[in-house]
Amino acid sequence: MRGAVIYGPGDVRVEDREDPKIIQPTDAVIRLSATCVCGSDLWAWRGTDPVTQPTPMGHEYAGVVQVVGSEVRNVRPGDFVIGSFFASDGTCEICQAGYQSRCAHLEYVGAGGAQAEYLRVPLADGTLVATHGQPDPGLIPSLLAASDVLGTGWFGAVAADVRPGKTVAVVGDGAVGLLAVLAARQLGAAQIIAMSRHEPRQKLALELGATDIVTERSDEGVVRVKEMTGGYGAHSVIEAVGTQESMMQAIRSTRPGGHVGYVGVAHDVQLPGEELFYAEVHLHGGPAPVRRFLPELIGLIENRTINPGAVFDLTLPLDQAAEGYKAMDERRAIKTLLTI
Amino acid sequence: MRGAVIYGPGDVRVEDREDPKIIQPTDAVIRLSATCVCGSDLWAWRGTDPVTQPTPMGHEYAGVVQVVGSEVRNVRPGDFVIGSFFASDGTCEICQAGYQSRCAHLEYVGAGGAQAEYLRVPLADGTLVATHGQPDPGLIPSLLAASDVLGTGWFGAVAADVRPGKTVAVVGDGAVGLLAVLAARQLGAAQIIAMSRHEPRQKLALELGATDIVTERSDEGVVRVKEMTGGYGAHSVIEAVGTQESMMQAIRSTRPGGHVGYVGVAHDVQLPGEELFYAEVHLHGGPAPVRRFLPELIGLIENRTINPGAVFDLTLPLDQAAEGYKAMDERRAIKTLLTI
Repeated sequence: MRGAVIYGPGDVRVEDREDPKIIQPTDAVIRLSATCVCGSDLWAWRGTDPVTQPTPMGHEYAGVVQVVGSEVRNVRPGDFVIGSFFASDGTCEICQAGYQSRCAHLEYVGAGGAQAEYLRVPLADGTLVATHGQPDPGLIPSLLAASDVLGTGWFGAVAADVRPGKTVAVVGDGAVGLLAVLAARQLGAAQIIAMSRHEPRQKLALELGATDIVTERSDEGVVRVKEMTGGYGAHSVIEAVGTQESMMQAIRSTRPGGHVGYVGVAHDVQLPGEELFYAEVHLHGGPAPVRRFLPELIGLIENRTINPGAVFDLTLPLDQAAEGYKAMDERRAIKTLLTI
Repeated sequence: MRGAVIYGPGDVRVEDREDPKIIQPTDAVIRLSATCVCGSDLWAWRGTDPVTQPTPMGHEYAGVVQVVGSEVRNVRPGDFVIGSFFASDGTCEICQAGYQSRCAHLEYVGAGGAQAEYLRVPLADGTLVATHGQPDPGLIPSLLAASDVLGTGWFGAVAADVRPGKTVAVVGDGAVGLLAVLAARQLGAAQIIAMSRHEPRQKLALELGATDIVTERSDEGVVRVKEMTGGYGAHSVIEAVGTQESMMQAIRSTRPGGHVGYVGVAHDVQLPGEELFYAEVHLHGGPAPVRRFLPELIGLIENRTINPGAVFDLTLPLDQAAEGYKAMDERRAIKTLLTI
């Protein structure tokens, strides 16, 4: 099969790779209907995360089950399925509590490289969710988005305790931040402030449900959010970047007793204990337990209540994956869909 | 009146001070029925918090209203009242949401020094809660405990989302930690692990509702808690110390998706963002909004459901306040009650 492999910063090659096979009796192998490039893939592209050996890339997937291991019961060949970047058993106490991203038997699905034609998914029963019949091809971008960026943005909103009538601010205008706006809208927020200084992203944020745009960053952004929320700060703030600046901006934009939901993968972040103590916010986040939300999100996509596929503003064939990375790195594209 | 003033590390003197008066029309002045020394007072006694000028000490109080300002409506002279160390207006959005400790018009009641015969309480209507009639003198230690250590331990348990049937660990065996054990018991926890290596405190923890004692600290303590909770960690962990070690112990003892409630005043704490991200716990805490819980706590004390006054294991007259500090600093006493 064809699949993307990173060799070093800025060096992603699509090459012939061995077809994945069933290894464990709980595995499934799927044929991807489409795949995509994630903002978090750019850490390796930029050299921030070191690349020590050629590494298959991609962790977002949706497609058709080809074959299942002997112990798989919940999905069968021919099913159209979506899963998360983390495989989960679905049965441990952590999964049962809705934290499949920290399952006691966690495996990283992306290890196989989902920017490819086929993918082995471990723990298929606890990981994959089938759609209701074969989806309309027009829905595939949205179903693919559910695999990570929608599920992650949604978790950010849930972790930030977004509720009907409340005020929400979103720090970060990547695909996750934009879909956190969509999630906040679905969860009934009255005021959704998107923090962005990038015109096409501002426009998409407004389409997805933002009520206000703030272009200021850092402490100036905090001041603006406070001005817009009666001086108190937002009830809920979603952090979707992962830097020291974005985390502190999120914490400082939240009112005492309010909630910060953080889903940007933390890079060199240190939270000052004393400031956090007196901020008196709730803090929750981490790798999104996307699996928890998939049944609901698939339903909302199937009945066309939401259109998270709108974050894909560049479509390329898989063989041009490198250009997809480059366009995102240069902020010419929000998110790249790779056709197969 | 007589009142305690700190002049420097280890130098607390009880001396004649000016009687407090009504300054704002929203003030009340109360005559304290008893007062006490807080673990947090020891930061100044030990020189960790610098003492730059003679400073009145004490922020825990219960007593009888002497006089009220012209705008006070909710309490009247003769009422027996309890309040928190932070005065709150009770009307701003933050107070209405239950975060009176971050009220938009917050004032520190302890500024007047509650280790004294009389105390001015600002924002009396939003701050003070009256008992149902004059309390039995035997209840006064418990009512005084509600002013801070009980309210703070209770908030720790609420912030840690303690629920019926869940497992709880408590880091810290001071009065707050011990009363967090009591709170966890009242909130229905099935397993309550008190972390203590001090025999009299272990004994009191068991009396207050602990089901298990763990003497190991830091990472060894984490290992023990995980062993006792099916390998997952506790659902809820209450942190009642405020150091780097205790915060990390609390975070690492909590299962993914679980809750850390932290009420130890943070001193030189830095939380590593990446570890926090992958820990995937909920984090909430800060200065306890004691006022939120006072009506319920007073009721539980009046009907003798709880006896938080049990944390007072040393009683001295106010004039011997310094010995009360010294006994706590040397861990000869858990908490000192000062009679007036």
